[in-house]
Amino acid sequence: QQRGPEGMEEKRMPLPKSQKWVCWRISSALCQWIKFEEKVEDGGERWSMPHIPALPLHSLFELRTCLQKGTVLLDLDAHSVKEIIDKALCRQPDDWVLLPELRDRLAALLLLQPRHQATKSPLLALADLGLSPCRGNAWPCPFPAAEQRESFSRDSAVAGVILHGLSMSFQLRNRFKKKLPPGAEVANVMVGEVDFLKKPFTVFVRLREVAALGSLTEVALPSRFLFILLGPHAKVKAYHEIGRAMATLLTDELFQRVALQAKNQEDIIAGIDVFLDELTVLPPGKWDASARIPPPSCLPSPHKRKPHCNGSTAAAEDRPGLGHQHFSEELERTGRLFGGLVRDIRRKAPWYRSDFSDALHIQCLSAVLYIYLATVTNAITFGGMLGDATGVLESFLGTAFAGSIFCLFSGQPLTILSSTGPVLVFERLLFSFSEDYSLDYLEFRLWIGLWVAFFGLVLVATEASHLVQYFTRFTEEGFCALISLIFIYDSLKKMLSLAEAFPINWHYRTDDVTLYSCSCNLSSPGEPRLPWPRSWGSPAWLSRAQCLSRGGQLLGTSCHYVPDVTLLSFLLFGGTFLCCTALKHFKSSRYFPTGLRKLVSDFSIILAILIFCAIDVALGLETPKLLVPSELKPTNPTRGWIVLPFGANPWWVCLAAAVPAVLVTILIFMDQQITAVILNRKEYKLKKGAGFHLDLLCVSLLMIVTSVTGLPWYVSATVISLAHMDSLRKESTTSAPGEQPEFLGIREQRLTGLAVFILTGVSVFMAPVLKYIPMPVLYGVFLHMGVVALNSIQFTDRVRLFLMPAKHQPDLLYLRHVPLRRVHLFTTIQVLCLAVLWVLKSTVAAIIFPVMLLALVGIRKGLERIFSLHDLSWLDSIMPEPGRKEAEGKLPRKHEEEESDTEEVGDVLGAVLFCCCPHGCVGAEAEPGLGVQLRAAASAAQRGRESQQPRLTSPSSLS
Amino acid sequence: QQRGPEGMEEKRMPLPKSQKWVCWRISSALCQWIKFEEKVEDGGERWSMPHIPALPLHSLFELRTCLQKGTVLLDLDAHSVKEIIDKALCRQPDDWVLLPELRDRLAALLLLQPRHQATKSPLLALADLGLSPCRGNAWPCPFPAAEQRESFSRDSAVAGVILHGLSMSFQLRNRFKKKLPPGAEVANVMVGEVDFLKKPFTVFVRLREVAALGSLTEVALPSRFLFILLGPHAKVKAYHEIGRAMATLLTDELFQRVALQAKNQEDIIAGIDVFLDELTVLPPGKWDASARIPPPSCLPSPHKRKPHCNGSTAAAEDRPGLGHQHFSEELERTGRLFGGLVRDIRRKAPWYRSDFSDALHIQCLSAVLYIYLATVTNAITFGGMLGDATGVLESFLGTAFAGSIFCLFSGQPLTILSSTGPVLVFERLLFSFSEDYSLDYLEFRLWIGLWVAFFGLVLVATEASHLVQYFTRFTEEGFCALISLIFIYDSLKKMLSLAEAFPINWHYRTDDVTLYSCSCNLSSPGEPRLPWPRSWGSPAWLSRAQCLSRGGQLLGTSCHYVPDVTLLSFLLFGGTFLCCTALKHFKSSRYFPTGLRKLVSDFSIILAILIFCAIDVALGLETPKLLVPSELKPTNPTRGWIVLPFGANPWWVCLAAAVPAVLVTILIFMDQQITAVILNRKEYKLKKGAGFHLDLLCVSLLMIVTSVTGLPWYVSATVISLAHMDSLRKESTTSAPGEQPEFLGIREQRLTGLAVFILTGVSVFMAPVLKYIPMPVLYGVFLHMGVVALNSIQFTDRVRLFLMPAKHQPDLLYLRHVPLRRVHLFTTIQVLCLAVLWVLKSTVAAIIFPVMLLALVGIRKGLERIFSLHDLSWLDSIMPEPGRKEAEGKLPRKHEEEESDTEEVGDVLGAVLFCCCPHGCVGAEAEPGLGVQLRAAASAAQRGRESQQPRLTSPSSLS
Repeated sequence: QQRGPEGMEEKRMPLPKSQKWVCWRISSALCQWIKFEEKVEDGGERWSMPHIPALPLHSLFELRTCLQKGTVLLDLDAHSVKEIIDKALCRQPDDWVLLPELRDRLAALLLLQPRHQATKSPLLALADLGLSPCRGNAWPCPFPAAEQRESFSRDSAVAGVILHGLSMSFQLRNRFKKKLPPGAEVANVMVGEVDFLKKPFTVFVRLREVAALGSLTEVALPSRFLFILLGPHAKVKAYHEIGRAMATLLTDELFQRVALQAKNQEDIIAGIDVFLDELTVLPPGKWDASARIPPPSCLPSPHKRKPHCNGSTAAAEDRPGLGHQHFSEELERTGRLFGGLVRDIRRKAPWYRSDFSDALHIQCLSAVLYIYLATVTNAITFGGMLGDATGVLESFLGTAFAGSIFCLFSGQPLTILSSTGPVLVFERLLFSFSEDYSLDYLEFRLWIGLWVAFFGLVLVATEASHLVQYFTRFTEEGFCALISLIFIYDSLKKMLSLAEAFPINWHYRTDDVTLYSCSCNLSSPGEPRLPWPRSWGSPAWLSRAQCLSRGGQLLGTSCHYVPDVTLLSFLLFGGTFLCCTALKHFKSSRYFPTGLRKLVSDFSIILAILIFCAIDVALGLETPKLLVPSELKPTNPTRGWIVLPFGANPWWVCLAAAVPAVLVTILIFMDQQITAVILNRKEYKLKKGAGFHLDLLCVSLLMIVTSVTGLPWYVSATVISLAHMDSLRKESTTSAPGEQPEFLGIREQRLTGLAVFILTGVSVFMAPVLKYIPMPVLYGVFLHMGVVALNSIQFTDRVRLFLMPAKHQPDLLYLRHVPLRRVHLFTTIQVLCLAVLWVLKSTVAAIIFPVMLLALVGIRKGLERIFSLHDLSWLDSIMPEPGRKEAEGKLPRKHEEEESDTEEVGDVLGAVLFCCCPHGCVGAEAEPGLGVQLRAAASAAQRGRESQQPRLTSPSSLS
Repeated sequence: QQRGPEGMEEKRMPLPKSQKWVCWRISSALCQWIKFEEKVEDGGERWSMPHIPALPLHSLFELRTCLQKGTVLLDLDAHSVKEIIDKALCRQPDDWVLLPELRDRLAALLLLQPRHQATKSPLLALADLGLSPCRGNAWPCPFPAAEQRESFSRDSAVAGVILHGLSMSFQLRNRFKKKLPPGAEVANVMVGEVDFLKKPFTVFVRLREVAALGSLTEVALPSRFLFILLGPHAKVKAYHEIGRAMATLLTDELFQRVALQAKNQEDIIAGIDVFLDELTVLPPGKWDASARIPPPSCLPSPHKRKPHCNGSTAAAEDRPGLGHQHFSEELERTGRLFGGLVRDIRRKAPWYRSDFSDALHIQCLSAVLYIYLATVTNAITFGGMLGDATGVLESFLGTAFAGSIFCLFSGQPLTILSSTGPVLVFERLLFSFSEDYSLDYLEFRLWIGLWVAFFGLVLVATEASHLVQYFTRFTEEGFCALISLIFIYDSLKKMLSLAEAFPINWHYRTDDVTLYSCSCNLSSPGEPRLPWPRSWGSPAWLSRAQCLSRGGQLLGTSCHYVPDVTLLSFLLFGGTFLCCTALKHFKSSRYFPTGLRKLVSDFSIILAILIFCAIDVALGLETPKLLVPSELKPTNPTRGWIVLPFGANPWWVCLAAAVPAVLVTILIFMDQQITAVILNRKEYKLKKGAGFHLDLLCVSLLMIVTSVTGLPWYVSATVISLAHMDSLRKESTTSAPGEQPEFLGIREQRLTGLAVFILTGVSVFMAPVLKYIPMPVLYGVFLHMGVVALNSIQFTDRVRLFLMPAKHQPDLLYLRHVPLRRVHLFTTIQVLCLAVLWVLKSTVAAIIFPVMLLALVGIRKGLERIFSLHDLSWLDSIMPEPGRKEAEGKLPRKHEEEESDTEEVGDVLGAVLFCCCPHGCVGAEAEPGLGVQLRAAASAAQRGRESQQPRLTSPSSLS
């Protein structure tokens, strides 16, 4: 019963106790192949890790000889095991002198197992045979050597044990089947030794039509191929290896094709020769054969045996191309006014219904909560920045309104609209400018907004988003790094400002406890202070607020200090950050079942927030909490909800506003489109396409509304949008043991975004719940988001290379092809650009920040004069590799070649289950026994292009 | 210049700029073999990671054909390249129609490089040839296709560039040589294509005597083997692979032997066949040939190709044995009284001088500081536990005295003596017992101590330490886990007690700041309170201490709270723990050079302590500090330094003390000997042997002294001793790129221990310095020590397995051989034992704790009735595998077989440097060019048994 269910992904079957009694040497020979090899470990109770079937070269040659000398029956017309065996025995080659009695014995032997399985329980079978359990017996012979047993029944016992498991594991087997693609087939490899044969008996059978061979195949899948090798005694180990070799061959996709199409024995042999020719060999002195090589994350593609990857798709060429093919559809110029916009709408419209139905998944709930909290924190963080002009309430309402509209009508609804750092910096500049020149800020801003909207429309009309294709990785990374750094910087700055808000008395001495006090002095400074009794219940006692409201002064040594709050805040901040990170990585830990780990990882942020909110509540200290406004009125009481276009400023301001508007337009265009480019990367496998023009239109139109109502301006927020995408990743459950889970894409829908913004809108009414969330916890989440975003870009990897001596550097793909010096030069230029951007952002020169963003594109063009195209193709390909990818094992993510339809023959089995039962454990003194094992195999028979689609579309089946 | 120095461990050479101009396709073909293959990456500026040379099977067969058809010159009598070439060209086989003019061209070609190297700089050479740099040219042809160039000079240019590096890297080359074992040889493999040949020209040369071939070999090492393959145009890739195959063959230790002893061509071919037979093959569909397999940490041994390991040695058998061979020497019974003791002294005496001289290493300084702080903290932690009987000062003096004596005279001076949990628990029990029965504790204790010392002497005399061999992993792990858990538990408990000592006002409200105060009330409770003015400088103001000393009462809401201290303590505690862990792991990070990382890792604890002390000082808060007593007098003022044996108790107490003494003896024997067993594990590769009897004698004699003077009792402290060992690890710098650093043993000496205890003794005078160390920081270090000790035992790994679904479990060796169910059962029994021990330790039943420890051994014996010997041999082998060892790659640590002297022939080259220069980059249009490259190789030629010794004995050469 080590078979089917044990090889599974999810759960290993609890094995019946009786298994223990079976000689473990037998079990040690059991293997199964589902893409990779799995072996039954000593003791026979567990499958090994899936590993690459490393074979001795010898066994392949022996297999070749076997097939050359043995019988190869192609297109055999048989529908049962008996039929197959009969026909195989009849059609022996001439030089095989198969005596009738020998033939009968063989036939009986080969047909034995199916007969025995239903009638006898393994324990019964063991009892019948008087087999003593091997308990306490040391290797090599668990059977009493002197005992004489009849070979037939011994064999049946073993088969019985194995088939017993079969009936036990019925449900689990079904689960196993679910893992296999439709059309999977089984190949059976049976190897063993018998005493009555003088030379090996080999049959390779291909059935004309797939047949369900009943209990021969343990999983109820049809079989097409059978390989039987029975040989004389004492070469068990060799037979076993030959069997492994056959199984490995049958899992080879090219050989499958050969075996399916072979006309005769020679074709099969030729197939083996082709296989042999492609082998990689490992020298004996450098590699130990018993070491198991774990499956690589990328498998060589069967077509042309070039590596292709399960993960994300990268450049289309063998080397990363400089071409911009991936934008071709979305960004091709039509040459007509609004041509791109029309095309965007046409592209997105058919998906509109599914944009809502696709959201029905538990993961979306987690995403909504996570992004909601991030958005709210963002709104609060950035909301208070403009002082009296627009406040937190405006920030909430604006986010909710703009976000919902964008989610409903945009081209890329995964984008989360928000106030972003650069735009805010710019708005702050405008604010101080208008203060300096005594302009009415909101009116001035209204005109700028209108101009920006106008320019935006012009850009949409002229299909300016076409220019996006000049945003290479260089630009993206520079921008993304800047935004991520702003996130990190802001979260730390906010934490430090907490320390200022709740100052600690670092000079507190326990001994001086009597010294610290604070009293309210209501008298005017000159008058003598009255001694207030400070004990509780004193009628004259005034709290801080009461004292200050009555015009009193707080006097004393402890008035300005708040104990514990700051330190607890830092504990919560650090704890949340570490907890987020740890829970996120929990997915790749070894503990607990995959489903649980995935769930925890999906909800990592929410869990971390809940844990630390609970800790905070339990401790009860007065840490700063998330306080959302609960009244619906503008923060600045002097204005209404509509900003009037005229009145406060001179008339020419309307026109003059066009000048700053140009800068704002550049800024918004860059901010919006770089984010859009990052979100629409091919590696995310988005299926519904982008809508650059449509997105820009939405942003432009929203500009009008937000300017008129005096709400903040909104563009796509890179970091939060990335977090949004990240929380909506779809991954396949692995189909074959050892295969890496496949990234299937993102849950593209409009509902999570919409829900986030609706929640943001009604947050005003959720203040009683939200007030339990401490701000340090949210800053911890912010820090986590910033760090994740920063880590997700290759730029960070390259910066790390600076600190690594060359020999310790990971085997990154670009390092294989670009000299380290050039890589460092490229990184240095990026770092300089980033530094310039940061300085610009932080100083008065921020006014030319948008231009600098634009300049990034120019600098990238300039790089082509410094770097060769070859170097740039590796360092600055349009498609950044996601995360750190070491070339070892994980190979270059290459574009999966769309295979031509001629590959339809590839509809063959893709994996083999295999096992053999040598009798080595019987020992030399015992009567030479015989052992036959038969194995079932499940295989993936899918067309070339089908295999690129998700195998199991619903990961929820896991949990 | 990609050669020698670049392959090094320590530093990659800065390459000359000119290298850039060399066609990168050429460089991409450069490889070197020093045990593993290293390839020059595209761009020619870096060596790849060392990896296992995976070859196409094809190339090996082609190589075989080449050697069959080509010339094989064995024992050629030549001393220069010219001589070799001349003789090789003369002795072509008959069917090779070598026209005189062809021969001349070949000779000229092969002799070309050495002539050019000194005379021309590569830039000059390039200039001469008018080679345009390849900048900007895309693959495949960096040379202008139309340009006609003379093939000879092109070749010389390439050679020039490469040899230019040679002269530059002179110093680095010397460093490279230092890495190689004495007697290393070079083998040269040259592969290329020329236009004037119609069929391949192959020569395999073995020189009669090794010869320095000058600049042919880049490193100045003698050569013995040469392989030259020149063939007609257009098969460059194949030639390259053949060259790789030849190089791989030449690095194979078995083939080296064959090549050295071969009498004729057939022997060489036979050698290849043997090699082929042992090959492991990877199926093409499952493995991509371009993936680089990193070198395994264990290499198969050349003898019998069985895996053997660089790391620690494990059981002597193929399967872990149950035998106790490793104790044989130390624990063999002599049958004479004190026979074992005499033998211990005889064994250790010769090492006594080196016990001091071996301590001269920077690492020892770190060890002293680390262990000193641990010991002092331990002394303080455990010191205060006995209340008035013995206090912190006694703890300090006792530790210093007992430790120094033990370090000077013990058998295993790496042991750190200390108060340990179990002994202290027992002492506390005795204390309360004598209080209950109004006995004088110190006198009672004196008699117990004397009895224990007597029993100890009896045990030494009867060689009872012989019983140590029944302490298997089961016992060790149970005890070690208990001690580690006590460490962890104590550090956490101490932190929580801090929270009690410095209570936080969790209900503090900022608004109520005026409410919180504390005043001193000097009047008696009944009287009315006087309103004290609390402002600074008020003459009546009294501090807490003053107030209490005057009999006053502290009244007020803030009297019982201490702000910030607790939370800061937790921050320091967590920070120190995380910092220790991070710095410890820094060694295995990729950043910064190995030497720096090793230094940081060695000093990780000290660094962490310093960092957090600095933070604490900078913040200035009144955290609890390490306060050592500064006066030399007994804590209990009523007693002197000597405990009198009679007087306070009835006379029969002297005799009755023998009863508890039996229990104490058991406890001390178990505690001492289990620790000794753990410290003397074979995996630590101790060279100076153990001294179980001598250790026990020391402990027994010290018992007398400590009992008489009323100091605490001391035995070996497991956790601190392990930390001591750990901080004294010697590791080799890796000799070949890709080889794992070898664990060479421990710096066995008496000086570090002695220094630690002397420092502890003088700590009384170091109070001004030590008072800057906050206790939370030291508790953090304690936690770290406990966690490290807990993680170092296999038991922890097995407990973790409970949480892992079977398919995610690491490929641990015992899991390959023992059913998971049995592993879990074994672990469960251990957990239960541990739980019982823990409960016993914590409750009144602690009195039978020593017996329970003894019972562990019995339980282990009982396990043999539940588990088969086979299972136990894997789960409870005497030699625990150090740390987690996954079987993948890192194979079972098997005992290195001591090879017989017949292996002396193995004095051959062990590695090959190799490179070839195909002209594929010239493109098809260009004149068919020719390219020859020749490479130097450095190799390890050591005898079989030499290779098992450390290659570089002084790791200090690293730093």
